[in-house]
Amino acid sequence: MSMISKKMTPLVNNNSAIRAMFEEGKRLAAVYGAENVFDFSLGNPNVPAPAAVNQAICDIVREEPSALVHGYMNNAGFEDVREAIAASLNRRFHTAFHMGNILMTVGAASGLNVILKTLLDPGDQVLTFAPYFVEYGNYVRNYDGILEVVLPDTDTFQPNLEELSRRITERTKAVIINTPNNPTGVIYSAETLTRLGSILEEKEKAFGTQIVLISDEPYRELAYDGVEVPYVTKFYHNTVVCYSYSKSLSLPGERIGYLVIPDELTDSSEVFNAAVIANRVTGSVNAPSLMQRVIMRCVDEQADLEAYDRNRNLLYQGLREAGFECVKPQGAFYMFVKSPEPDEKKFCEACRQERILVVPGSSFACPGYVRISYCVSYDQIRRSLPGFKRIAKAYGLRGE
Amino acid sequence: MSMISKKMTPLVNNNSAIRAMFEEGKRLAAVYGAENVFDFSLGNPNVPAPAAVNQAICDIVREEPSALVHGYMNNAGFEDVREAIAASLNRRFHTAFHMGNILMTVGAASGLNVILKTLLDPGDQVLTFAPYFVEYGNYVRNYDGILEVVLPDTDTFQPNLEELSRRITERTKAVIINTPNNPTGVIYSAETLTRLGSILEEKEKAFGTQIVLISDEPYRELAYDGVEVPYVTKFYHNTVVCYSYSKSLSLPGERIGYLVIPDELTDSSEVFNAAVIANRVTGSVNAPSLMQRVIMRCVDEQADLEAYDRNRNLLYQGLREAGFECVKPQGAFYMFVKSPEPDEKKFCEACRQERILVVPGSSFACPGYVRISYCVSYDQIRRSLPGFKRIAKAYGLRGE
Repeated sequence: MSMISKKMTPLVNNNSAIRAMFEEGKRLAAVYGAENVFDFSLGNPNVPAPAAVNQAICDIVREEPSALVHGYMNNAGFEDVREAIAASLNRRFHTAFHMGNILMTVGAASGLNVILKTLLDPGDQVLTFAPYFVEYGNYVRNYDGILEVVLPDTDTFQPNLEELSRRITERTKAVIINTPNNPTGVIYSAETLTRLGSILEEKEKAFGTQIVLISDEPYRELAYDGVEVPYVTKFYHNTVVCYSYSKSLSLPGERIGYLVIPDELTDSSEVFNAAVIANRVTGSVNAPSLMQRVIMRCVDEQADLEAYDRNRNLLYQGLREAGFECVKPQGAFYMFVKSPEPDEKKFCEACRQERILVVPGSSFACPGYVRISYCVSYDQIRRSLPGFKRIAKAYGLRGE
Repeated sequence: MSMISKKMTPLVNNNSAIRAMFEEGKRLAAVYGAENVFDFSLGNPNVPAPAAVNQAICDIVREEPSALVHGYMNNAGFEDVREAIAASLNRRFHTAFHMGNILMTVGAASGLNVILKTLLDPGDQVLTFAPYFVEYGNYVRNYDGILEVVLPDTDTFQPNLEELSRRITERTKAVIINTPNNPTGVIYSAETLTRLGSILEEKEKAFGTQIVLISDEPYRELAYDGVEVPYVTKFYHNTVVCYSYSKSLSLPGERIGYLVIPDELTDSSEVFNAAVIANRVTGSVNAPSLMQRVIMRCVDEQADLEAYDRNRNLLYQGLREAGFECVKPQGAFYMFVKSPEPDEKKFCEACRQERILVVPGSSFACPGYVRISYCVSYDQIRRSLPGFKRIAKAYGLRGE
């Protein structure tokens, strides 16, 4: 009899590959020195949190009473914080949210779990678009749902809406999108979202069901070249937004984010109440209290986007010059680069020989590509480019 | 077709009773003034966090780099923090833990979810002792386990081990204990734990199974009169400890705690690795990072226990003088008082007439009693005592 549950066993087995890469990074660093290992595998922001965040932290513990700052509140979060977030969204996106639409969560990962637990019955289908963040599968399976993956359009990496339309059935309870996208950096346009909304409305009518569009938006504020990231709730009534401050305020370890459950959602207040209970019983209880108070004071702050943009341009330029193919990312801090050989794991291995660590696209259900995270130092990118060039040359690629 | 999952629906329905009480408290406060409502229903510590905690918060954001303080780390938590916790436990309880036994969690509630997800297959039985924290049932049902409740010994509120022994079957995967106990304040003695350990070992042998003793210990540091709270891992090999700093450092809103998974546990390192993955996929990802760094610096700090002790003595004395019956709590900050009539909900209603809010024992699977939380101001207790005396008189109780 195994100690570990049957449901956890495959996760434990799969995890060894991720661990192996992590261990390999440590081994390379030990042999060659950390400065000679170019780790592009993680989404851990290199840009520090805005100074206003650390200032707010100190001010809050000095100015606000301990029992408030560190104490329990409504499981949905502090009311003034939720009001401040709704007001900020309304200012920036011309929405009409109020406190009752905002549920503070332990980051977007927990927000996704909370809304999936609220909605899913065993056997319910959830659709998402490849390439996608592999944890979606684990989150959906937590509630015995079935994640099904729509194949990618590798020309544009915009969502393949024709296939989506064909794949929706009466068991489809939710569709998860992620824009700006991990791993491609693509942003869904207003046109895309309009079409997506129409398809979902049509299918709701055809099947007499409710289909919830779950928009996972930790990268919302990371958009370059002035590209707009349309606010998804405007395009479809049954939308729930999962947000995180992990990237916009460089606070990934703090686990602070929120769900937006709009009034337009079917049975909105019942869903909100159920989600608050899900937030409690999944063990979060509430989002970390001090960080909630910090958000209250820093609701319109943002980490230095310029730094990521400089990284993006340097890396894109360098990879193109070397001869690699890649859609130029408009958002997030990832580049999804075409592997010069069909089996991208072999390409990852060639990169590793240059002490460059990247993630195979098969980890995102999109083989033939690799993900390069550029939320690292400018210097790391600069010093890695000769290695990328040597790899390109070995593959016979011709740069621009 | 309902928007809300079948599994969440009963939770939503049950929740209305809790909400009703919360709303009633707010209504009373609006009518009579907050200072004239004696709310003893919540476990939200009134004692502030130690000054060292707020000092550490400011020092950390000034001294440590942002990407460390607010960044991702190993999903198990910062290594130096886990090492510091292991060392503190070893100093205080003469244990031999190391970093590899400590998994940082989003409070004890998340710790319980993480270990239950790690262990439970659908249909597995989990036993606990009434009266018990009602969320255990929700946590166990999250993973399709079945919580079964051992009846209370209302003379001492020590666990009913004879009944436990009879109720264990080959489907028993875990037993949850909570000492110092919510809601009784009772601490399990070394003798009790020795007998409990023997029973579990015997049953493991008899059935050829593994039975994990899950010790939920958010109140470990809240023990009065110098009573020792024995460290449970010493009494039984298959023990997992769920700890939280919610009470010891008055940080309930911050969601910071840890699991202890000792080397003695069967397949210890496999269970640890699986629990780290469960921590990730349940959506916590990791315990809040700044609070982890705070624990590093405040690992031996403690909130003012004297304040709770003064409250305990005042309330116990006052209730006894009024004529109520109650086992004097040795730990935590709850008193479990015998209702003067069999239906304790009627007694709760009589209390409400005096604007005193207490929780019915049936919420802890132990009707005929009520829970009074004394983690409130000394003044609130003092000013509530005339009300308690009037209630006692109306019931014809005779004080000491």
